[in-house]
Amino acid sequence: MTGGGGGHGPGGPRAPGPGSGGLTLREAQEAVDAWISRFEEGYWPPLANLARLTEEVGELARELNHRYGAKPKKPGEPDVDLGLEMADVLFVLLALANEQGIDLEDALERVLEKYEVRDAGRWTPRKGGPGDGGTTPRT
Amino acid sequence: MTGGGGGHGPGGPRAPGPGSGGLTLREAQEAVDAWISRFEEGYWPPLANLARLTEEVGELARELNHRYGAKPKKPGEPDVDLGLEMADVLFVLLALANEQGIDLEDALERVLEKYEVRDAGRWTPRKGGPGDGGTTPRT
Amino acid sequence: MTGGGGGHGPGGPRAPGPGSGGLTLREAQEAVDAWISRFEEGYWPPLANLARLTEEVGELARELNHRYGAKPKKPGEPDVDLGLEMADVLFVLLALANEQGIDLEDALERVLEKYEVRDAGRWTPRKGGPGDGGTTPRT
Amino acid sequence: MTGGGGGHGPGGPRAPGPGSGGLTLREAQEAVDAWISRFEEGYWPPLANLARLTEEVGELARELNHRYGAKPKKPGEPDVDLGLEMADVLFVLLALANEQGIDLEDALERVLEKYEVRDAGRWTPRKGGPGDGGTTPRT
Repeated sequence: MTGGGGGHGPGGPRAPGPGSGGLTLREAQEAVDAWISRFEEGYWPPLANLARLTEEVGELARELNHRYGAKPKKPGEPDVDLGLEMADVLFVLLALANEQGIDLEDALERVLEKYEVRDAGRWTPRKGGPGDGGTTPRT
Repeated sequence: MTGGGGGHGPGGPRAPGPGSGGLTLREAQEAVDAWISRFEEGYWPPLANLARLTEEVGELARELNHRYGAKPKKPGEPDVDLGLEMADVLFVLLALANEQGIDLEDALERVLEKYEVRDAGRWTPRKGGPGDGGTTPRT
Repeated sequence: MTGGGGGHGPGGPRAPGPGSGGLTLREAQEAVDAWISRFEEGYWPPLANLARLTEEVGELARELNHRYGAKPKKPGEPDVDLGLEMADVLFVLLALANEQGIDLEDALERVLEKYEVRDAGRWTPRKGGPGDGGTTPRT
Repeated sequence: MTGGGGGHGPGGPRAPGPGSGGLTLREAQEAVDAWISRFEEGYWPPLANLARLTEEVGELARELNHRYGAKPKKPGEPDVDLGLEMADVLFVLLALANEQGIDLEDALERVLEKYEVRDAGRWTPRKGGPGDGGTTPRT
């Protein structure tokens, strides 16, 4: 039901895998900035960006509901690329962060620290797992 | 009104800046996986993850409305770290991508290509800028 | 799994029951207008109202996720009145409709007609039920 | 900027007007119940209903952003009936309330009372208006 956590090890199917190099969050913010800077309109005001974030989350919700919820497709309604829907959400989030001058890498690291402190007792550590005192297998 | 686009150059206040190294999107997905894998509960089902995404977008909306919209704070209501609110959204998006086995870097690159094709005529190219035929993408 | 539809008759636990009189949608819009008109600030601009709608839907999402999803309460986090969360969403929707000059009763009736045409073949009519050619709409 | 509140009197363009009779909130909940009860599928589980609410709010966000924000229509993209978008949101909210056995009229009345207590000092009473001690002009 939950789709795992316990069922996959490091380098399993969920994580893209170590050593893959690739785009940093900062480069992603820069790529969005480069795209937006090509046009006269520039960045949208915050509440317009937020409205677009709401729209894109809604499109993701529609597709997840089709797949995991109760909403059947209309006849002829095509399958949607879930990765693209998620990346649409990510694009707007990157644009909003740029417009606000926020470094998402820094913010994400602070969120991970916050969860460490706040939520550590909220969940059940895996027996014999890293939450149980083992060495951290994924870093 | 728009907050710019035309008003800042490469390395300006919005983009974290080139050469900053840092966390890749894949490492961010792995960090979220490492966190979630510490606990027996593992990944949530997709619609529960989506509900949490909705909740976190709502918290971001509240703070943006306080700052740019019309909603005053209740007396004693503290200022909120906008970066943390955005990173909470990002965390849930990374978890949802992991649970669905989606590589967000790959998906984001496909979105940027999609925008290139679909939206190129939707906005006004900057005069003398890269959208106007220039070669340097960030100036 | 679905929580019913077939399992309750007219006047069952889900519907408030016929003959209950009560507040019309138009009176609800007027009550919201009366409240808002008491203050100098008046109606918010549309995107600020939308941001608040997003916020209130997020609060509803949090509570539904606590109850039906995977998110446990933090220690000491109180139970929330689900009816109040829904009514907060309704309040903002009524305000947005007022601000836009929209009569929600009229719009709802048009939506019900739209579903009648568009979605009639999307679901499975209940055997022996009204969708199967019966005349009584609620049995 | 605010779109009014102070600018229209009782029976002005925003409120549908007194004496209009019409559909009560309870009848609206019953109409949704009648529609859903026609089909085998019945009510959706709460998180699927929530996903649909998120989707419908997203569609409303798209249209409001087109009109009041920064997002231009794609060529050939038709105008959307804002009333229908709002009523789609209302429909899902009514369904969710039904599925949860919640009487929205009762809940809305409690929300109006809550605002009375909690938010009365958060806004500026209109001079010479009802918030300034006058009798209530709209009831």
